Amino acid sequence: MNTNWTDKLQNLKKTTGTLASSSPETMKIFGSLALTVTKDGALSKKNKELMAIAISICIRCEDCIAYHMQNAIKAQASREEVIESINVAIEMGGGPSTVYGGKAIAAYEEFTRA
Amino acid sequence: MNTNWTDKLQNLKKTTGTLASSSPETMKIFGSLALTVTKDGALSKKNKELMAIAISICIRCEDCIAYHMQNAIKAQASREEVIESINVAIEMGGGPSTVYGGKAIAAYEEFTRA
Amino acid sequence: MNTNWTDKLQNLKKTTGTLASSSPETMKIFGSLALTVTKDGALSKKNKELMAIAISICIRCEDCIAYHMQNAIKAQASREEVIESINVAIEMGGGPSTVYGGKAIAAYEEFTRA
Amino acid sequence: MNTNWTDKLQNLKKTTGTLASSSPETMKIFGSLALTVTKDGALSKKNKELMAIAISICIRCEDCIAYHMQNAIKAQASREEVIESINVAIEMGGGPSTVYGGKAIAAYEEFTRA
Amino acid sequence: MNTNWTDKLQNLKKTTGTLASSSPETMKIFGSLALTVTKDGALSKKNKELMAIAISICIRCEDCIAYHMQNAIKAQASREEVIESINVAIEMGGGPSTVYGGKAIAAYEEFTRA
Amino acid sequence: MNTNWTDKLQNLKKTTGTLASSSPETMKIFGSLALTVTKDGALSKKNKELMAIAISICIRCEDCIAYHMQNAIKAQASREEVIESINVAIEMGGGPSTVYGGKAIAAYEEFTRA
Repeated sequence: MNTNWTDKLQNLKKTTGTLASSSPETMKIFGSLALTVTKDGALSKKNKELMAIAISICIRCEDCIAYHMQNAIKAQASREEVIESINVAIEMGGGPSTVYGGKAIAAYEEFTRA
Repeated sequence: MNTNWTDKLQNLKKTTGTLASSSPETMKIFGSLALTVTKDGALSKKNKELMAIAISICIRCEDCIAYHMQNAIKAQASREEVIESINVAIEMGGGPSTVYGGKAIAAYEEFTRA
Repeated sequence: MNTNWTDKLQNLKKTTGTLASSSPETMKIFGSLALTVTKDGALSKKNKELMAIAISICIRCEDCIAYHMQNAIKAQASREEVIESINVAIEMGGGPSTVYGGKAIAAYEEFTRA
Repeated sequence: MNTNWTDKLQNLKKTTGTLASSSPETMKIFGSLALTVTKDGALSKKNKELMAIAISICIRCEDCIAYHMQNAIKAQASREEVIESINVAIEMGGGPSTVYGGKAIAAYEEFTRA
Repeated sequence: MNTNWTDKLQNLKKTTGTLASSSPETMKIFGSLALTVTKDGALSKKNKELMAIAISICIRCEDCIAYHMQNAIKAQASREEVIESINVAIEMGGGPSTVYGGKAIAAYEEFTRA
Repeated sequence: MNTNWTDKLQNLKKTTGTLASSSPETMKIFGSLALTVTKDGALSKKNKELMAIAISICIRCEDCIAYHMQNAIKAQASREEVIESINVAIEMGGGPSTVYGGKAIAAYEEFTRA
């Protein structure tokens, strides 16, 4: 019953892909919003993706963790940076964030092993 | 790892069925609440079920999506109406609602294919 | 200590106005997202604003209630339609939704009295 | 800017009172649900109200804290029991629960002073 | 597709174990927080674990339900006490709490059968 | 009805101060958790406080925004960095995050003006 994070991400892409073709106008605008807010600026793309991971943990969204973890890794986030982001999420979310923080580190390990 | 929405709904019925037999008084009152608020009135049952889907997406509750999607389909909600409800959820919930909106459209497709 | 909803809305416009001038690119895209998802389509603008009210109640966001209530009233939502939307929020959110549903009806009354 | 919890409760009663007269059927059923789940049973009414306080803190609902605190006090909850319930909420909610836990103890103090 | 709660708990222990070895300082402090708030005091450990279950249901965290259910059972919580805690969660969370309440009773049954 | 953020922070310190003296053991451990997770490490204290602001916006906690904004400013966060953190919160939280993002920028302005 271990989560397979690569499959989870695959499935996420499929379902949001269906949504994108069903609702092209809204999803195109949302895509442009996502692109705009995460580009390098006063804060680096890496830091913004780590921020998105911490938020995903606090709101308990597994697929969001998968998606932003993949982006953070692409942006060269280190294991230690991921862990410290999880720690902030624990301070802001308590016990449930230890649960989803555990999921986040599992996703990190699977994505960097692959 | 694609979610099987029909199985999910089946399992939901089983677990809430156990709850209903374990806690008959509370669950009977709750059932009467659910019935009352979703009946046709100033707003149609269909519109109320679509509203419940949008809420379910925003609060990230997969089984709630499954349950209210089935009801919305029974109440003759069209694919386009489901999609526009997902869009409202995206405005009110951002990226996580694109994730659960994707799940909602997958549920819709499975339930209307079946 | 009654909430003054007109003041609340005024203040919301001021703070989001500051945000819009501080972060014009993101807020312009978001504005276009909000516009797109709430326009008349398979569902009416009125029904979408009522949906946004129900979500606002379930996530306990007072300013969101104020903002979408004003829009719903502009889109000709009736008192009965507002109440039935609150009822759906109660089914989906329990006791806390009776609290924020009470706030919603107070906002409706103040905005339609003014 | 200290919250006046007695005023807050007063205002809550007014707004939910308006809701009750606007939506009598739903609110009557909900009232009966609330009554049923909090009566003495395998768990005491006091313990259930403390449970509702802990939930209210975790979901950050000030009026819910006010309402259930008043009920807990009526059911003879002690200051120490309130504090231990806040502590559970802190474990389950992290920093934000220290914020709303602080509000809860302030409400307790105001209601028992009055 | 029935959830296997024993497997879920097993997997939770594995992922949080990885987190504990990756972030020993934070997780050690958090462990001490969890221990402190749930020990017998003005409220019993059993009542605090039931409180944590009710919160877990309201915030829709399956693994949290699994973890605190196991603890509640160890602390001698009865089936009826679990059910009444679920009922409080239903009052505080509406329909989604009937969904996660159903999961909670399924977890209880699996853990007490084992 | 503009929020006075300095007063809000003052009041927060008072209520959590009462909680700290009422529940010294739990609050001392929590304080040590907060200190540990936000200290400079692989990520800077500044970046962690900005992360906490983004989370506070997404979970709609005004006092949390006030508290972490003050810390971020002390850690030399710039206006632009605050704005980009708000933007990430908008991507992760939609419309409600524009509302609480507006509050965050208002808090930033008041704290840096003072």
